[in-house]
Amino acid sequence: MKRISLASALVPFKAYLNIFDCLWTERIGRGKYVEQLEAKACEFFNVKNCIAVGNGTLADILVLMAMKIKINDPSKHQVVMPALTFVAHSNAVIMAGLTPVFVDVGDDLQMDQDQCKQAVNKHTLCIFPVHLLGVECKIPKVRVPVLEDCCEAMGGITKKGKKFFGTQGTAGTFSMYPSHTITTGEGGLILSNDDEFAKLIRSLHNHGKVAGSNDFNFDHIGINAKMTNLQAAIGCAVFDTIDEVNQRRKENVILYNFILGQDFYSAAPHGYPVIYKDKEQRDWALEVLGDRGIEARKLMSCVPNLKPYQELGFGVQGYNAQRLADCGLFLPLHQRLTKQDIERICNALIRP
Amino acid sequence: MKRISLASALVPFKAYLNIFDCLWTERIGRGKYVEQLEAKACEFFNVKNCIAVGNGTLADILVLMAMKIKINDPSKHQVVMPALTFVAHSNAVIMAGLTPVFVDVGDDLQMDQDQCKQAVNKHTLCIFPVHLLGVECKIPKVRVPVLEDCCEAMGGITKKGKKFFGTQGTAGTFSMYPSHTITTGEGGLILSNDDEFAKLIRSLHNHGKVAGSNDFNFDHIGINAKMTNLQAAIGCAVFDTIDEVNQRRKENVILYNFILGQDFYSAAPHGYPVIYKDKEQRDWALEVLGDRGIEARKLMSCVPNLKPYQELGFGVQGYNAQRLADCGLFLPLHQRLTKQDIERICNALIRP
Repeated sequence: MKRISLASALVPFKAYLNIFDCLWTERIGRGKYVEQLEAKACEFFNVKNCIAVGNGTLADILVLMAMKIKINDPSKHQVVMPALTFVAHSNAVIMAGLTPVFVDVGDDLQMDQDQCKQAVNKHTLCIFPVHLLGVECKIPKVRVPVLEDCCEAMGGITKKGKKFFGTQGTAGTFSMYPSHTITTGEGGLILSNDDEFAKLIRSLHNHGKVAGSNDFNFDHIGINAKMTNLQAAIGCAVFDTIDEVNQRRKENVILYNFILGQDFYSAAPHGYPVIYKDKEQRDWALEVLGDRGIEARKLMSCVPNLKPYQELGFGVQGYNAQRLADCGLFLPLHQRLTKQDIERICNALIRP
Repeated sequence: MKRISLASALVPFKAYLNIFDCLWTERIGRGKYVEQLEAKACEFFNVKNCIAVGNGTLADILVLMAMKIKINDPSKHQVVMPALTFVAHSNAVIMAGLTPVFVDVGDDLQMDQDQCKQAVNKHTLCIFPVHLLGVECKIPKVRVPVLEDCCEAMGGITKKGKKFFGTQGTAGTFSMYPSHTITTGEGGLILSNDDEFAKLIRSLHNHGKVAGSNDFNFDHIGINAKMTNLQAAIGCAVFDTIDEVNQRRKENVILYNFILGQDFYSAAPHGYPVIYKDKEQRDWALEVLGDRGIEARKLMSCVPNLKPYQELGFGVQGYNAQRLADCGLFLPLHQRLTKQDIERICNALIRP
C-alpha cells in the first residue's frame, strides 16, 4: 500500500544544475544564488527588500529582534498573536526576549477581533498574526506595527485588495521547509518594504555586522541566520513553481470539499483541516488514517497551554484554540496527490 | 595576480554523489546523511553523542539554552568567557538570555587564570572558553560546568592528556563555515558525553519537541537549528579529511614560523596571527596586504568594547584583549596554500 505523506519535496532539474555549479565553483556558503533568490522574491512579491535566511523560525526571530531595535522602548515588550499556531512562532517571541500575548481564534482560524483590540496596550510592541494552513488571517485594525507570519502561506493573496501575504505590515516571514509550498530543505525569506528595517535585518542575520564591512565591526547583537548558496540554488529553481503548486493544491481543496461537503478555502493551501466533536473521535480518526498509511496531523497546538508555556504562566482556559487543537486534524494536500489518493484519504477518514 | 583568500572550501567528489542522492530521493530536509554525520563524529571524537546543527552560532546558543535548563536556577545567569573572541560566541550568551562576564586574555590567547577564578561566583552558570584560531585554551580549574567553543578548532587535541577539543566539558561546539577546517557551507556540531544533556539539545534544536513524538508536543521552548540532509551529505564527505587538512595547515604554520621567526602553535590551525606594536602599523599592514591581493583580517574583537556591548554597559578599560584586537591580524593558513603563496604573503607583510 502506497504511503501518503503530508509533504512532498519538489526538486526540479534546474536545481541539479544550480547545485552542481555551487559544488564545482566551491561556493557552498555565500554566493550568487542567494542574491538571485532575493531578487526573484522582490520581483514576484513586488516588494522592495528580501533577505534569505536559514529557516522560517530564524526569520520570525529576526523580524522581532529588528522590531525591538526599531521601536527602541523597553516598556514595549508584548507581541499580540493567535493562541493557535505552530510553536516556532511563539518560541521566536521568547527567543527575542519579548512576551507573547495570546488571543483566541475562531473555527475559521481568525483571531478574535475584540480580544485582539483589548490585548493592545501601551506595552504592545507589535501584532504578529499568522496565515495558518495558508488561510488568510485578516489583520486586525490596531495602531501598532504588524509583522506577518506567512511560513505556511507562500504565494497567498488577500481576498480584499489582492495583496500578497507578507506585504501588509512592516515585514513578512516565510518558510521553505519540505511541507511548505516550495522547499529548499530548510529555508526562510523575509520581505519588507521598509528599507531601514530590511537593512537592520540584513545586519542582524549576519552577527549584527556593519553593512559592507569586512572587519570585525558590529552594530548590533545579531545571530547567524544566513541562507547558504546551496539552499538558494534550489530556491531559485523551485521559486518559479509557486503559482503552479498553489494551483494544484487549490484543486485538491476543491476535491476534498466536494467529497466531504465542506467549504474550506485557503489562499496558499498547506493542509486540509477537519474538526471533530471531541478529542476521542479525532484521535481515533488519526489512528485509522495512520493504520491505512496516510499521514495526518493534529491541528497545531493551543500554544499557551503547552507544557513550557504553562510553566511560564501563560496557561489559558476556555479558549476555542484549545478545542481546535484537541479536536482538529489536517490531511495531506500537496501538489503530487492524485484524485485517487484524495479519494483513498476520504474513504479512510472517519467523518466528523 | 592570483588572489590569496583566507578560506578555501574543499568539496570532495564523494560530496557530489551524496548530494545527487539527496536530490534524486528528494530528501533535502531531514535524512540519512544527518545521522551518518553524527555517527561519524561520535566515532572520530570518541564521544557518546553528537547533534548536527545549522551553524556554529546556533550550536553555541543551544548548549547555553540547555545548560540553563539543566542547572534550573535563575540566579545563575552569568557565563564566564574570554574578552577576545568572535562575536557570535558572546551573542549566543545574550540570545540565550544570559549575561557574559568577560575575562582578559594574554598574548598567548589564554584567559587570565586569576581573573577567571575571581569571575566565578554564586551567579555563574558555566564557563565558556574558546579555542580561538585553533589555539588550545587551557580550561581554568573552576567548580562550574564547562562548555567549549571549538568553532575554529575542529580536530584539535590538547597537549596534555591528548583529549579532543570539545570533549573536556559538558559539551563542545563546532562550526563548519567555509573558513574552518572542514565546511558544509554553513553547519555546526555539538558533542557531549552527557546523555541527558544531549537529549535536551536534540529537543531544543527541533522546536523543543518531545523526543520521538510526531505530534505537536513540546517539552521546552526551542528553536529550529536542524542541519539539512544536503549539508550533512557534504559533511559526510569532508569529515574524513579533518586530519589531513589540519596536517597541511600545521605545515603552513611551520613555514610561516620559519620565515617570520615566530613560534606560533595551533592544534587545529585557523589563521596565522601577527601582532604589531600599534594600530597604525597593523592597519597599514592590512592595507598593503589587501593591495597585493592577499586577504587578511583583524584579530577578532575585544567584544565588551564593541558598540552594542558598550551600550549594554559591558565596556572594559586596559584589557590586553583590546590591544590584540587593535594591533593584531591573522594571515591565510588554509590547506591549499602553496609554499610560494606563503612566501608571497610574507614578502608582502610589513614585519612587526
